[in-house]
Amino acid sequence: MREVAIIGIGQTPIGEHWNDSLRQLATRALHEAVSDSGIDRIPEALYIANMCAPRLSNQAHLGALIADHSGWRGIEAATIEAACASGGMAVQAAVRAIASGMVEVVAVCGVEKMTDDTTSQITSALATAADADYEGAHGASFVALNALIMRRYMHQYNVPHRAFGAFSINAHKNAANNQNAMFRKPISQQIYDRAPMIADPINLYDSSPICDGSAALILAPLELAKTLNRPIIRVRASASATDSIGLADRKDILSLAAISQSAQRAYQQAGLQTSDINLFEVHDAFSIMAAASLEACGFAKPGTAPFHAQDGEFALDGKLPISTMGGLKGRGHPVGATGVYEIADLITQMRGMAGANQIRDAVIGMAQNIGGTGATVVTHILERVA
Amino acid sequence: MREVAIIGIGQTPIGEHWNDSLRQLATRALHEAVSDSGIDRIPEALYIANMCAPRLSNQAHLGALIADHSGWRGIEAATIEAACASGGMAVQAAVRAIASGMVEVVAVCGVEKMTDDTTSQITSALATAADADYEGAHGASFVALNALIMRRYMHQYNVPHRAFGAFSINAHKNAANNQNAMFRKPISQQIYDRAPMIADPINLYDSSPICDGSAALILAPLELAKTLNRPIIRVRASASATDSIGLADRKDILSLAAISQSAQRAYQQAGLQTSDINLFEVHDAFSIMAAASLEACGFAKPGTAPFHAQDGEFALDGKLPISTMGGLKGRGHPVGATGVYEIADLITQMRGMAGANQIRDAVIGMAQNIGGTGATVVTHILERVA
Repeated sequence: MREVAIIGIGQTPIGEHWNDSLRQLATRALHEAVSDSGIDRIPEALYIANMCAPRLSNQAHLGALIADHSGWRGIEAATIEAACASGGMAVQAAVRAIASGMVEVVAVCGVEKMTDDTTSQITSALATAADADYEGAHGASFVALNALIMRRYMHQYNVPHRAFGAFSINAHKNAANNQNAMFRKPISQQIYDRAPMIADPINLYDSSPICDGSAALILAPLELAKTLNRPIIRVRASASATDSIGLADRKDILSLAAISQSAQRAYQQAGLQTSDINLFEVHDAFSIMAAASLEACGFAKPGTAPFHAQDGEFALDGKLPISTMGGLKGRGHPVGATGVYEIADLITQMRGMAGANQIRDAVIGMAQNIGGTGATVVTHILERVA
Repeated sequence: MREVAIIGIGQTPIGEHWNDSLRQLATRALHEAVSDSGIDRIPEALYIANMCAPRLSNQAHLGALIADHSGWRGIEAATIEAACASGGMAVQAAVRAIASGMVEVVAVCGVEKMTDDTTSQITSALATAADADYEGAHGASFVALNALIMRRYMHQYNVPHRAFGAFSINAHKNAANNQNAMFRKPISQQIYDRAPMIADPINLYDSSPICDGSAALILAPLELAKTLNRPIIRVRASASATDSIGLADRKDILSLAAISQSAQRAYQQAGLQTSDINLFEVHDAFSIMAAASLEACGFAKPGTAPFHAQDGEFALDGKLPISTMGGLKGRGHPVGATGVYEIADLITQMRGMAGANQIRDAVIGMAQNIGGTGATVVTHILERVA
């Protein structure tokens, strides 16, 4: 099995891109990633991560569309979809394509354009991540399902709502220094406490935004990466797991088995444990998901993550920095693209290019991408080897 | 690089499955494939091929959904989409996952449930395979785009419409003996000639049907396949290519560059040439596509395939049998699932299980799966090694 490296990253700012089409956003991120990689050849394969284009842009078949628009007509291309975990699964497909020895250079592009349609259409499109027959058909929106998890968590572990504010405050603080982030203003505990309710107990600042954006990565064999005059980022683990997509089909809605299973598989692949991880790009689509992910990955005991967040353990100078460029909450959450943004942020830190947000000793980084209410979970562990 | 084999096939009949949900169809095909393979373990990964579920069933995230419904909660899963070439691209992803050495047994499941919605919604969903901004927005349906290609072909090569009937007559004749086919009645040239026009010059019998169905494959390392007491089907080539998805973006709408590029890459991977191929499952979504594919793959000179079809060269006892179990025209074309059905049909022949349709000496088989009007093309070449 060939070792794999990520040699290039590119991203558009996240926001409401009313003047740019889906293909334009994707091509911009891809060209930036190729330029960043320093290679002078085009990728042989392209994996697109996207969830909403068939519904919100009337466009499937993004692989061929974006390959062509990027000037790469002829190369292999396909879309990988696993709801909000599409980005992570596309990276996994790219890792395997290179590990197989069948292709050399692969591009991954997460792209999402959500703001062109009505709120009602966007809410319906997001609900396709849940069980259409047993959840969606009964009117359960995606935020409502996460609210069920958060309410149960608060009850079971006796955690007050305001404790979750620490995740949001940290994310917005980090986003303020990221020029690609959607939100650039820090928030206070008071702003969090007074935010309007979206789906009780999830308020506006517990939720990531509807937005547009594209992020891209270039992957290549580790041996090729060594020939480029750049920091080498090696893929130590790429592991995924699934759970039922319907919450009611789980024995315990707080167990979130796929989160822990995906993380455990990643630790095993990498031969590492939680204490080896220097930073963690967490899937904070909702603040409850940040807490759940940290706990199920073994970074905090059940019911304690919000309190550790209040103690500053997940800040840039904390024990385990998370959402270091703003996370889904502050940077933004263009759903199918998010898993790719997470890894781009991780690499920005691991290359020492994070500017005012730069953390110390970013050698081993982990990113976790969650689809649905924890139904598909992908965990990547990267290492800077030079 | 590890050699890969296909060890199990399963399929539901194709038709209008009003009493079965998407997940039920998929699970039925998957369980049949596992049972057929003779292995007593569950796959570690599942790749779903689907195009229309996000629009027609309000359901994305099929990987986790179907993994769970099949009793495999926890395994890796994702959807691969490339319009009507989704099936072929999912098989390619599975081949690479095994070749990488990272997983052992992988399931691929193509599933499509198209008949639950209105004709207008289905037509719109199919149009997402074309360019939404430059084709779909102007009202070009998918059949209309194929009609442009067919009209140009008839003009350029001076081919009368009735010559294309040979493809349809052959497909329907072969489908009559396939219990999984949607259409079980042979048709005559007279029936073809009198069929109502859909989008001139494409008539009813030039077109494959709207339908529901699911097909599944189990893939494993060749070494594992050798331990099972079954005919061994080895993957000799898995190659894909892309073209512009908009017809107007091509220099010549008859060039269909991705068809020939994908086939040439496959011949090169396999170290084979056209004369080595014993049978060819062609993507006859429209009869013009059967002709175009045969010619671009090198099985006939440009402008001649319909005449060769009239001469019986593509019949079960001809030089190169095609659509041996009915093809997309007779068996049916559940769009995202079609590439998987094609390979299941190929293997049925290569194992000598094709009953009344069995061809002689089915050792090397080729299947080609086409997305859009030739924008994504995947070619697989399989070999029976024991």
